[in-house]
Amino acid sequence: MNIELTGTSIIGNSRGAITSDIFTAFDPTTGNAVEPPFYSATLDELNGAADLADSARIPYGNIPGRDRAVFLRKIADNIEALGDTLIHRASLETSLPNARFVGERGRTCAQLRMFADLLDEGSWVDARIDHAIPDREPLPKPDVRSMLRPLGPVAVFCASNFPLAYSVAGGDTASALAAGCPVIVNAHIAHPGTAEPVGIAIANAAKECGMPEGVFSLLFSSGYEIGQALVRHQAIKAVGFTGSRRGGRALMDIAAARPEPIAVYTEMSSVNPTFILPSAVKERGDAIVAGLHASVTGGVGQFCTKPGLVFVPDDATDFISNFKSQISNTSTAPLLTGGIQKSYRTANEARATETQIVANTETELPGFSVNPSVFETSAVEFLNTPELNEEIFGPTTLLIRSNDHDELIKIANALEGQLTASIHGTDDDLIEYADLIAILETKVGRLIFNGFSTGVEVCPSMVHGGSYPATSDGRSTAVGTRAITRFARLVCYQNFPDAALPDELKESNPLGMWRMTDGVFGK
Amino acid sequence: MNIELTGTSIIGNSRGAITSDIFTAFDPTTGNAVEPPFYSATLDELNGAADLADSARIPYGNIPGRDRAVFLRKIADNIEALGDTLIHRASLETSLPNARFVGERGRTCAQLRMFADLLDEGSWVDARIDHAIPDREPLPKPDVRSMLRPLGPVAVFCASNFPLAYSVAGGDTASALAAGCPVIVNAHIAHPGTAEPVGIAIANAAKECGMPEGVFSLLFSSGYEIGQALVRHQAIKAVGFTGSRRGGRALMDIAAARPEPIAVYTEMSSVNPTFILPSAVKERGDAIVAGLHASVTGGVGQFCTKPGLVFVPDDATDFISNFKSQISNTSTAPLLTGGIQKSYRTANEARATETQIVANTETELPGFSVNPSVFETSAVEFLNTPELNEEIFGPTTLLIRSNDHDELIKIANALEGQLTASIHGTDDDLIEYADLIAILETKVGRLIFNGFSTGVEVCPSMVHGGSYPATSDGRSTAVGTRAITRFARLVCYQNFPDAALPDELKESNPLGMWRMTDGVFGK
Repeated sequence: MNIELTGTSIIGNSRGAITSDIFTAFDPTTGNAVEPPFYSATLDELNGAADLADSARIPYGNIPGRDRAVFLRKIADNIEALGDTLIHRASLETSLPNARFVGERGRTCAQLRMFADLLDEGSWVDARIDHAIPDREPLPKPDVRSMLRPLGPVAVFCASNFPLAYSVAGGDTASALAAGCPVIVNAHIAHPGTAEPVGIAIANAAKECGMPEGVFSLLFSSGYEIGQALVRHQAIKAVGFTGSRRGGRALMDIAAARPEPIAVYTEMSSVNPTFILPSAVKERGDAIVAGLHASVTGGVGQFCTKPGLVFVPDDATDFISNFKSQISNTSTAPLLTGGIQKSYRTANEARATETQIVANTETELPGFSVNPSVFETSAVEFLNTPELNEEIFGPTTLLIRSNDHDELIKIANALEGQLTASIHGTDDDLIEYADLIAILETKVGRLIFNGFSTGVEVCPSMVHGGSYPATSDGRSTAVGTRAITRFARLVCYQNFPDAALPDELKESNPLGMWRMTDGVFGK
Repeated sequence: MNIELTGTSIIGNSRGAITSDIFTAFDPTTGNAVEPPFYSATLDELNGAADLADSARIPYGNIPGRDRAVFLRKIADNIEALGDTLIHRASLETSLPNARFVGERGRTCAQLRMFADLLDEGSWVDARIDHAIPDREPLPKPDVRSMLRPLGPVAVFCASNFPLAYSVAGGDTASALAAGCPVIVNAHIAHPGTAEPVGIAIANAAKECGMPEGVFSLLFSSGYEIGQALVRHQAIKAVGFTGSRRGGRALMDIAAARPEPIAVYTEMSSVNPTFILPSAVKERGDAIVAGLHASVTGGVGQFCTKPGLVFVPDDATDFISNFKSQISNTSTAPLLTGGIQKSYRTANEARATETQIVANTETELPGFSVNPSVFETSAVEFLNTPELNEEIFGPTTLLIRSNDHDELIKIANALEGQLTASIHGTDDDLIEYADLIAILETKVGRLIFNGFSTGVEVCPSMVHGGSYPATSDGRSTAVGTRAITRFARLVCYQNFPDAALPDELKESNPLGMWRMTDGVFGK
């Protein structure tokens, strides 16, 4: 299906105006603007979208889960029906290869269908029933039943680095719609031409499935004003965001300062410490060099799980030189935006004055291109230079030499919150370094043994989270089925007659779900 | 067991200093100070307690759940061993009857044992296992396992109105200790002589069960400084608070402004709207008057679930006059503190100028005593006077006359977040007023049919929560087994060898828990 891009926002069943606040996508390879122009939403349009979401809140929240599942599957079908046009446009706006977007589209649609399956099965609502005991002494016990219900309209901010899987119909949108929450998406400035057809796919699915108007809107904007106003709007009850630490913290602060503070799920920055122990270098050094290189340079280093700090043994000379030479031989590639390119260059230059540099970005490269880089330092220098903990978005990493168990413990204690930490070694190392793992466990969402942090499996057990500043809310996960609970709240019904209860809580268990009845799990 | 009060804080295994910052409890009936003096903790003592909690974080978090269960049960045993001394002291400091504290002690110990049972059973950690598929195309699927792990040291603020069940060893402390988090309690200024022996009971239980020092500390303070510094301390990872809206919001703001913002669970204010429909007045008006009177005046009106807004039919003249006369005939009783008494009087006086008053507090009463009061207004006046939504802590309520379905909908839409809402009517009314219930459901933690909001059953399905400003985090509950998850975070282990996994995630399921394996629940 070919959708002609109009560049206008989607406000429920209407389209936004052609405004004077114009922006375009860019081709990162050349740095040239790409047609057509896109038009920033006005504050009036934002308010209109928020009012529609507010009015859709109760009707959409009361649509049975299995009907919401039909809606989610329809969205996936509609995205697939966009065909190669979507793939080509995403590739044009990002300079990432078509194959990447075929894969990312697969993940996006699989996520939508995963949540649909979760709704069909139903047990995610954590239904609990405690029966009355009218003759209990000294007081009768009431009948009490509870379950998760939708939190209300959610603002979703698209990620620069996942134009499909963490953008308009990505994980935040899918989990919020699954939970029964209307969604207003703030499109990313770097790939509006990918956002618009996906937005139309969702809006069409909403109409085709008879969903209330306002269940979905998509706002374009050239700056921060619309996004910040969205987080301030009283109709919005939660925020999902993937992006920079500065941007995420700004939204957290806005949300916390509201008259009614709201839930914020920002995924912000992580350097994904990777510990390569002597046994691993000895046993399979070359394989680890190859894996690490792929993990650091994949997606031009623009994954939130890219290993940014790599701890290697002091005497792993061959390993270090081998890795450096692989990075030096890696070709130039364009980053997603001019802003990311500038940040990468500035950060590389600063780091070059602090550490031993191996390869660096040149200043004269076409478009938004950069060269991969690698830095090296000692554990002592690292501990004395807190700036080295900062994430550099792009194809670079920092090798830190250390041979000392106690030194690694000191380093682990000083680390900030992270999405992941990885340990390469033997099974026996895990016992010897149990103290290291116990510290890392308090900071990260995911601990990986003999693997690399990039590549996040989408499955019920996945945790894509971690303590601040990796995320705003280290209790939760942004990937996997549990992401749905971010957008839900507990509600309890006391002494309600069966007919007035939601189906999930009716005595006969008409949906055949797992529930906890008088403290015992069962169906 | 008779514990002689020393008035000093408990800092791990040590006791705080005798400082010059002194305060005492008061006998609310007379307003006289009660011996002995209590000594505010110093900032050094606070830092000492926080450092100990930080150092206890990993060892305590790694103690198996079943051993933490032994600790919780020992706390309950030690509290019971305090015997009548505890009951009498609590009664002396609050002027609430002994019988109230026999009941509250029962609830406190039952809560501790409920969480112990939960730990023994184990499934609360939401263990999930997804097995590897090494030959999956295009990429192998890793082995991924995840569960809830402790969030870290928790600051607990005691509630004025529950000296046992929501104070030193109350629901927040019990659920945080159960989750594997060290706890630092900020005692309430109104009942320090109840706090100290309960604190000693916990500290002794920690020693008797071999728990790491720092798993528990108790700080006394005469003002806000220590409590606010506690929430600012970098070792603290979550806050539990029950109290005023102003106090709770202040802690929310402090927590949100930290370099690392943390989870805050404040339970703040609620007027628990109660809708008495015409059918209910007709069928059982007298019984409802009696129940409402008990609910408004029980505990001298100092329950967070006290019905503060009661909607009655316009023509329910007998019902209204009957209720007014019962309130008028209710005796004077002392509130918990001079501050609460002053707030009650000020709020009553302000309300008297806005509404038709029936009974009011006199100014010349002994100690902290007040008279119950009741106010009456029309729905139109109510909608035009937002101040009437404010909670008045104490034995008072506001009757609002309305006969109009649409008017009730308008009122429900304008309500703030609440802990509870109650509807008295027939089963048919629930169908007729489904729109009212759908609105209330978005605001409250608990919906009650033909019952009163006071009296919170402690059971797996209970939800004691509700949208802001009822609580800071309407996704959660402060009562019932689910309260434990407030103090836990998800952690995932990828490709870990079995021996290095927590028992909860080992392949053989050695703890015999409910788990989700490859998407399916089972044992």
